[in-house]
Amino acid sequence: MSKIEQKPENYGIASHFQHWEGDAAEDHNGPFFFAVETQSEGSDKVQTAFRVKPENCNAHKTLHGGILMMFADYTLCIAAIGGTHEAVVTVTCNNEFVGPAFEGDLVTGRGEVTRKGGSLIFVRAVIEVNGNTVLTSSAVVKRVKRREA
Amino acid sequence: MSKIEQKPENYGIASHFQHWEGDAAEDHNGPFFFAVETQSEGSDKVQTAFRVKPENCNAHKTLHGGILMMFADYTLCIAAIGGTHEAVVTVTCNNEFVGPAFEGDLVTGRGEVTRKGGSLIFVRAVIEVNGNTVLTSSAVVKRVKRREA
Amino acid sequence: MSKIEQKPENYGIASHFQHWEGDAAEDHNGPFFFAVETQSEGSDKVQTAFRVKPENCNAHKTLHGGILMMFADYTLCIAAIGGTHEAVVTVTCNNEFVGPAFEGDLVTGRGEVTRKGGSLIFVRAVIEVNGNTVLTSSAVVKRVKRREA
Amino acid sequence: MSKIEQKPENYGIASHFQHWEGDAAEDHNGPFFFAVETQSEGSDKVQTAFRVKPENCNAHKTLHGGILMMFADYTLCIAAIGGTHEAVVTVTCNNEFVGPAFEGDLVTGRGEVTRKGGSLIFVRAVIEVNGNTVLTSSAVVKRVKRREA
Repeated sequence: MSKIEQKPENYGIASHFQHWEGDAAEDHNGPFFFAVETQSEGSDKVQTAFRVKPENCNAHKTLHGGILMMFADYTLCIAAIGGTHEAVVTVTCNNEFVGPAFEGDLVTGRGEVTRKGGSLIFVRAVIEVNGNTVLTSSAVVKRVKRREA
Repeated sequence: MSKIEQKPENYGIASHFQHWEGDAAEDHNGPFFFAVETQSEGSDKVQTAFRVKPENCNAHKTLHGGILMMFADYTLCIAAIGGTHEAVVTVTCNNEFVGPAFEGDLVTGRGEVTRKGGSLIFVRAVIEVNGNTVLTSSAVVKRVKRREA
Repeated sequence: MSKIEQKPENYGIASHFQHWEGDAAEDHNGPFFFAVETQSEGSDKVQTAFRVKPENCNAHKTLHGGILMMFADYTLCIAAIGGTHEAVVTVTCNNEFVGPAFEGDLVTGRGEVTRKGGSLIFVRAVIEVNGNTVLTSSAVVKRVKRREA
Repeated sequence: MSKIEQKPENYGIASHFQHWEGDAAEDHNGPFFFAVETQSEGSDKVQTAFRVKPENCNAHKTLHGGILMMFADYTLCIAAIGGTHEAVVTVTCNNEFVGPAFEGDLVTGRGEVTRKGGSLIFVRAVIEVNGNTVLTSSAVVKRVKRREA
């Protein structure tokens, strides 16, 4: 996927949003974008955004629930690391499907750390379209130590 | 996506597995396949399968957690309708990430109905690679009445 | 249990908190108390409170996780009905145990409706001790029609 | 609570079931009982049982959802430790309320380990009355190192 396609402005998303490089699955369905609001330890909040394309939808031009959970997982993990490049893996991810999203919609997420422990991070997210909640999600993610090269 | 690509044999999956037509998001990431084991009311079990491709993975050639939840959602919904064409929407989907899956792996799912009510269906799924559990998942799905054309 | 015991002041809880009458299981472990902040349709928020007693704890004078989930369920259901006497049953309840609570602690809850549908209500809650989150919880509850006598 | 009251036979429960000593909250609502079926590492299964008493119920003589989650948590933790005295704390507990239980019912649980890791254990449980599922539950629990005296 070219850098041009990953500019947020091309999807009607504010230009201060960033793209996380190197995740093939996310780029294959997104691109997804994020912006870190605060970076104080234990109280990080992030915003995320993506535009629903035809290939994200099921038969009725409704956003697929699996893609919505994928975007929630993205939002939760980005919130957990809060603008750093720390590596984390999702341990649990719970989701309530509050309402539908449709082709062409701008889907936005807000993720928030509840607690950052030594090995586990607790995170919650709300995913919205036009200010209406479409998904609530919560996760426990685990900090992983990168293997040295 | 051509019919040839959606033959299960092309992915090393047994030929009695079927493909659910008309879901763009699933075909964009799969194709996913299913086989219904039993069809008695309230006790349906299904098997599902898909082959992990490079575009399903994150940086370390590990299957993306979001794609895994998408495949779980597919397994849970197919189990809920049990070989029928009833329309359902996911209300809740909870997931525990038990272990990783990698590029090239054959990921298989087993879904089982716990209870089929008048409006809500309770379902659980286990997702595996080579007999090792990679995800446990549970859902409540809602029966929806299709609008007539 | 006498009315005297169910006065919030006896537990160091503000006097505007109310007690829900007629639930033997809650009184056997509580009493639990609640206060409704707003009552506008679809945006109800409630506060709840209870004091941890020796019989709520496990071996190490830590509040039992099951009692904590019971109090979360109380908070979620009270939020769902928002000061009315509508009957609801819990369909799903997901919980993350963020931190411990101890004997003698004042445990407080905040519950919030995400969406009120015709048959299902989506709710979230945060349970705290001294401003520190001890549990995050989310639920789907179902409106039930009472049988007439 | 006297030893006499904690005999399983007094509650119509098979005599090989055991009682976990020292948990005030469980005894205040139970007593709860358990039997370990297998003890091989990573594949432990347990059975649990308790009799619903008036003080476990809400207004309509239905078992309170919170007590049901408390019994699920008991079942999940007993499954996680599988007959040992290892200390664990619940990190997440997800529940689907499949059907009701009533005053006088014998509630039984089956808990099963999905995976035992170095720090986290993945567990699932099914809670039943007369062979009908009333709750499905899943948890991640964390092994804790006991402080030496």
